[in-house]
Amino acid sequence: MSQIRKDVFTGRWVIMAETTTVQPADFNFKRLVRETKFCPFCETNEASTPPEVFAIRSPGSFPNGPGWSVRVVPNSAPRLRIEGELVPRADGFHDLMNGVGAHEIIAETPRHDRSLHELEIHKISDVIRAYVARMVDLERDKRVRYVLIFKNHGEGAGAHTISHSISQLVALPVTPRAVKTKLMIARDYFAAKERCIYCDVLQQEIKGRKRVIAENADFLAIAPFASRFPFEMAIFPKSHNSAFSRISPGQVESLARILRDVLGKLDNTVGGPPYNLSLQDRPFLRPAAPGSWNTIEDDFHWHMEILPQIVRVTGFEWASGFFYNPVPPETAARCLSPVVDA
Amino acid sequence: MSQIRKDVFTGRWVIMAETTTVQPADFNFKRLVRETKFCPFCETNEASTPPEVFAIRSPGSFPNGPGWSVRVVPNSAPRLRIEGELVPRADGFHDLMNGVGAHEIIAETPRHDRSLHELEIHKISDVIRAYVARMVDLERDKRVRYVLIFKNHGEGAGAHTISHSISQLVALPVTPRAVKTKLMIARDYFAAKERCIYCDVLQQEIKGRKRVIAENADFLAIAPFASRFPFEMAIFPKSHNSAFSRISPGQVESLARILRDVLGKLDNTVGGPPYNLSLQDRPFLRPAAPGSWNTIEDDFHWHMEILPQIVRVTGFEWASGFFYNPVPPETAARCLSPVVDA
Repeated sequence: MSQIRKDVFTGRWVIMAETTTVQPADFNFKRLVRETKFCPFCETNEASTPPEVFAIRSPGSFPNGPGWSVRVVPNSAPRLRIEGELVPRADGFHDLMNGVGAHEIIAETPRHDRSLHELEIHKISDVIRAYVARMVDLERDKRVRYVLIFKNHGEGAGAHTISHSISQLVALPVTPRAVKTKLMIARDYFAAKERCIYCDVLQQEIKGRKRVIAENADFLAIAPFASRFPFEMAIFPKSHNSAFSRISPGQVESLARILRDVLGKLDNTVGGPPYNLSLQDRPFLRPAAPGSWNTIEDDFHWHMEILPQIVRVTGFEWASGFFYNPVPPETAARCLSPVVDA
Repeated sequence: MSQIRKDVFTGRWVIMAETTTVQPADFNFKRLVRETKFCPFCETNEASTPPEVFAIRSPGSFPNGPGWSVRVVPNSAPRLRIEGELVPRADGFHDLMNGVGAHEIIAETPRHDRSLHELEIHKISDVIRAYVARMVDLERDKRVRYVLIFKNHGEGAGAHTISHSISQLVALPVTPRAVKTKLMIARDYFAAKERCIYCDVLQQEIKGRKRVIAENADFLAIAPFASRFPFEMAIFPKSHNSAFSRISPGQVESLARILRDVLGKLDNTVGGPPYNLSLQDRPFLRPAAPGSWNTIEDDFHWHMEILPQIVRVTGFEWASGFFYNPVPPETAARCLSPVVDA
């Protein structure tokens, strides 16, 4: 019999199929195909993008020239623009504000033929350092409340216009609803127990081991109990930390290792599926009215979500916020990280 | 400049592009292609489905034989099963219950070559009557709290296995989160103002007319102010009614007319895009603890949502619950329902 499972961090319900054997061939998805036409994110094509806002460069190289390992530029067709005032206002019952914010592209590598998980550990570490640097910089802009970093890998995950391996950053003047829901639940739990709900659940997952995909000294990767998507993964720092930008240099390398590990497993085991990756971080701390979400300090626990896109979302999911997942996370964890009998 | 808009009924944020001219050719989607292989939902193939639970039949025809205009059967591979007990339980921090509920297929027409909007008004009325009949029947099952009726049209909307024109029904033992959010906001507004938030917003939309797509005596179709998707549409009864099953016979025909009208406009103007349609109804009234959502009586206002699937959802939407929409609803309403100058 199928199960109806509730996600403890969001309250979201998922119908989990009873399937226990699953083959990647059961799913119909397109492996990433890299277009070979001119690409503005390849080394030596730096002049084709807006000027860089951040880069990690080899000694002696110059901004907007070759010699970088990771390079951040404004999106040339941004969804939000950095210039202007927000001007929050009403139109009768409707609320709106100007599209002020930022939209940046993080080129993860100068090479067109590499995916994130195919980079060396110190190169993936550079990508993570770029995330941190942009976050620290954007926190100084008082109009920005939230920075969302995400990645679309493959056409089925929305990467239909750019095939170079990139991440994206959107700086928002409001905290997104999906994050608010997590913040509310974590805050209420902390208020009741004086403990972090993520820390408590991670302890249970480490003890049970049924859904663990990978682990190192600093990070744990699991298939979440109420996974929405087949082979969904989440990566958590093992020690409590609400803000991603407080990550230590040692943790940067550990995160690079576990990312390379789990994205490689996904690629090998499932056959290179499209996926979306995102950083789930707390909002910036801003002075605000009492009770407002952006005064939250330490009751959140940042993490990364990796959502393979190998089944189509249908009217069921859109209408309800309920999900149907044909691959239980225990099966996914077994596929991705097979236990070798002694 | 783009705008950031808030949906008044859900609190969801949407970045609305500044585009004001849009061509269907700007989008890359597949028109519905009907497979011609054997179809269990075609007339004379009734023996290939589980026995029908409801049908509207011509006089003299027999159950599970030909002679019907709409026919409802259990899904042969249901996501939830009608047999068994729910047994809600915990696994440490995790909540789960057995997959008890119902999953039914509503064949909207005996003909394989017709879409919903290509049927005659009295045939679409039969489909709506079938929705009502199933809802009234399932309300008697005390394990069911919510009935979700939805439709996937075209492969891009998730209809990849069945090309016959069908709707689906899922009976759930819990109220879905997306519906709960709407119920909470409607209840709080009603408590504060003693008026329905939907009734108030509809008045504003009727007066402003910038987003009206179609209207008749009983129903209004609009492009919602904070539409998530290009050419998104919503249909509301003009007089307050929280429960779809209380629809009057006259309203059934009016709803059939406006559905045929707006789905036809979508097909003609945008070029037959894939879409998801859903009924957004209140939960069944059940005895429950005070403050529980399923005691809500009259502060909701049922409606239908139609979500064309012509842009890919990306990591941005999944990570945030925020949406990016390249076609503002004012543009969509103008495209779908051009104003003819006198």
